[in-house]
Amino acid sequence: MTSDLFARTRTLFEIPDGVIYLDGNSLGVMPKAARERVITELDVSWGRELIRAWNTCGWIDLPSKIGDRIATLIGAPPGSVVVADSTSINLYKALTSALQLSGDRRVILSDSGNFPTDLYVAEGVIRTLDRGLSLKIVAPEDIEAAIDADVAVLMLTEVDYRTGRMHDMARLTARAQAAGALTIWDLAHSCGALPVDLTGANADFAIGCSYKYLNGGPGAPAFIYVRPDHQPKIQPALSAWMGHAAPFAFPLNYTPAPAIDRMRTGTPPVLSLAALDSALTVWDGISMQDVRQRSMELSDLFIARVEALCPELELASPRDATKRGSQVSFRFHEGYAAMQALIADNVIGDFRAPDIMRFGFTPLYIGFAEVEEAARRLARIISENRWDRPEFKARSKVT
Amino acid sequence: MTSDLFARTRTLFEIPDGVIYLDGNSLGVMPKAARERVITELDVSWGRELIRAWNTCGWIDLPSKIGDRIATLIGAPPGSVVVADSTSINLYKALTSALQLSGDRRVILSDSGNFPTDLYVAEGVIRTLDRGLSLKIVAPEDIEAAIDADVAVLMLTEVDYRTGRMHDMARLTARAQAAGALTIWDLAHSCGALPVDLTGANADFAIGCSYKYLNGGPGAPAFIYVRPDHQPKIQPALSAWMGHAAPFAFPLNYTPAPAIDRMRTGTPPVLSLAALDSALTVWDGISMQDVRQRSMELSDLFIARVEALCPELELASPRDATKRGSQVSFRFHEGYAAMQALIADNVIGDFRAPDIMRFGFTPLYIGFAEVEEAARRLARIISENRWDRPEFKARSKVT
Repeated sequence: MTSDLFARTRTLFEIPDGVIYLDGNSLGVMPKAARERVITELDVSWGRELIRAWNTCGWIDLPSKIGDRIATLIGAPPGSVVVADSTSINLYKALTSALQLSGDRRVILSDSGNFPTDLYVAEGVIRTLDRGLSLKIVAPEDIEAAIDADVAVLMLTEVDYRTGRMHDMARLTARAQAAGALTIWDLAHSCGALPVDLTGANADFAIGCSYKYLNGGPGAPAFIYVRPDHQPKIQPALSAWMGHAAPFAFPLNYTPAPAIDRMRTGTPPVLSLAALDSALTVWDGISMQDVRQRSMELSDLFIARVEALCPELELASPRDATKRGSQVSFRFHEGYAAMQALIADNVIGDFRAPDIMRFGFTPLYIGFAEVEEAARRLARIISENRWDRPEFKARSKVT
Repeated sequence: MTSDLFARTRTLFEIPDGVIYLDGNSLGVMPKAARERVITELDVSWGRELIRAWNTCGWIDLPSKIGDRIATLIGAPPGSVVVADSTSINLYKALTSALQLSGDRRVILSDSGNFPTDLYVAEGVIRTLDRGLSLKIVAPEDIEAAIDADVAVLMLTEVDYRTGRMHDMARLTARAQAAGALTIWDLAHSCGALPVDLTGANADFAIGCSYKYLNGGPGAPAFIYVRPDHQPKIQPALSAWMGHAAPFAFPLNYTPAPAIDRMRTGTPPVLSLAALDSALTVWDGISMQDVRQRSMELSDLFIARVEALCPELELASPRDATKRGSQVSFRFHEGYAAMQALIADNVIGDFRAPDIMRFGFTPLYIGFAEVEEAARRLARIISENRWDRPEFKARSKVT
């Protein structure tokens, strides 16, 4: 039974007392196993083994070992995913790699629902390559029509960070490839939230974040997927020693590692990596289909309750659960202040400019009763105008 | 008295029982403050505050706060150093930035004593920019003569990772700038090891590692320095949201942050960052001149004892302590096996191909008695041919 399943997974997390946490789409809750692992890394690996830990504690293999763990969650074969750097840096690798395979085409196509850092990375690639490339940004619903023979790379985030609207990865990948373009999928709001099938969709590249639905810890390293047949054709723009075929021979010239390991760069942040490695054990024995089913039920319930109780809020997410990720967003003219008031009432979501109140649903540790209670508290804040206080309107540095 | 000083600093570290650790130049010993800090980040920041910790626990400011701490150790003004990514990624940023300021010149000049990843990064930059740049690698002693009007960027590591030989940063920077070139200094084996004066040397860019003499933890994030007058002129190649002027406004276009913060990229690995932040507190009240003086005494002692006891070993480092960093290397034809035998005898150094046995001296936690004992154990291993066993000759993945 899936309710037993999720009652069990909930026990794997350190959930703060009294908090209803609907922000796992921004920073996942700490798995107990991650906490224990980091303490072991401190006391045993760094503390006692010191430099030997690269061998004795397996530090050197963590990026590919964790990559293979993540691969099982996104429909990728072993040896096609590696963990390294941040999502932004991995997108730089993916874009510069894709542009090595795309001939003379000059357009990077994306949409205005993409997470802005992806667009900034594309700007940086265009400026740096300085060969007449351009970034074309259209509305999400216009993407399919904008795929033409000028497009070198279609670069999209599958699930919109603000609205949760989902692109059809398989369909758009097929369309792009039929037009001769390559695809890069950002799975930041997909991996761990819903079934992803990179192999089935024939995606060329993918990148993603491990601190949201994968619960890897704040700023945990990101991942990159390269379709196996592309791997040997790529000369990494970010060529560095951990991506070398023989890093500890210390030759003066770069020879890329045989496969996905060439996407590694410098020495990785081991404490953060190790937290992620153990955080991923919560997925052992979990079916992503079960997670998706529960996520849709939780988010449908939230929409129903909020709409019943708060007519002032406007749904910003697709009403059809199959068309959105594992989050629900509402528009409210004082969304920032209302979210601060809600957080003060121990229901944690977040705000995205200009007016989006965003709520993430993570079945591994959030249940129906909490979703109902969150909707009730939100309704009270709105009906009592509790957001209308200076302390809730004062903007923090990070929103 | 400096002996009291270093007796005190030693108590700030978790030194494993029975181990003489002469590899702080590869991975520094864990400061107790770093361990405590990481546990607080787990139990309070991630565990309880969750997403709120970006504001309430100051996560968002860590990269510039730590950058300013490091700045005080390398002669850089506040606001000129930021912590982000790895040394390799930061070198990519520095090189692509320097090449924006260097006009039509086409040569990146470096030396064969540079750490190979720096050369690999330069290769990646050259391939990616694809505008006729080339990497010229000369012997370290030929660098000065090789600086000519073709050189766009002089890219050097101040202290040679194998031999410890030190370049004269001020002199070479002046020579390069007189010839119209820019300079990038890799301080991996300098920061925390000896006094560095980036402002005095008028260095253009610098990068460095925080897990060696800064004891920040395995793979702790690296730093980048950009001379303040260059900062506003640079359009980052790796443009991403944490380097944006207004990341939480989420505009579709990139506008770089005003100063050094534009060198930030994606979301940083917070657990590793926090460890580094607290690790740096061991430097409070420490004079780098005192550290340097003690480091030279320790390494001079080691050379004297090893040369007296082990005629089979050949000194690979400069004999003059003022010409080397805080490490000493010896050549031995079976250096790998001899180092494994020494490690089995609880003296930890490391090996660098093809035949270098490398020993780092970190006055903050290593004293004279340990240095003498290390030399004695090394001498026994050599005189007894104890390295000549299969278990010591079998190569590990990481050497």
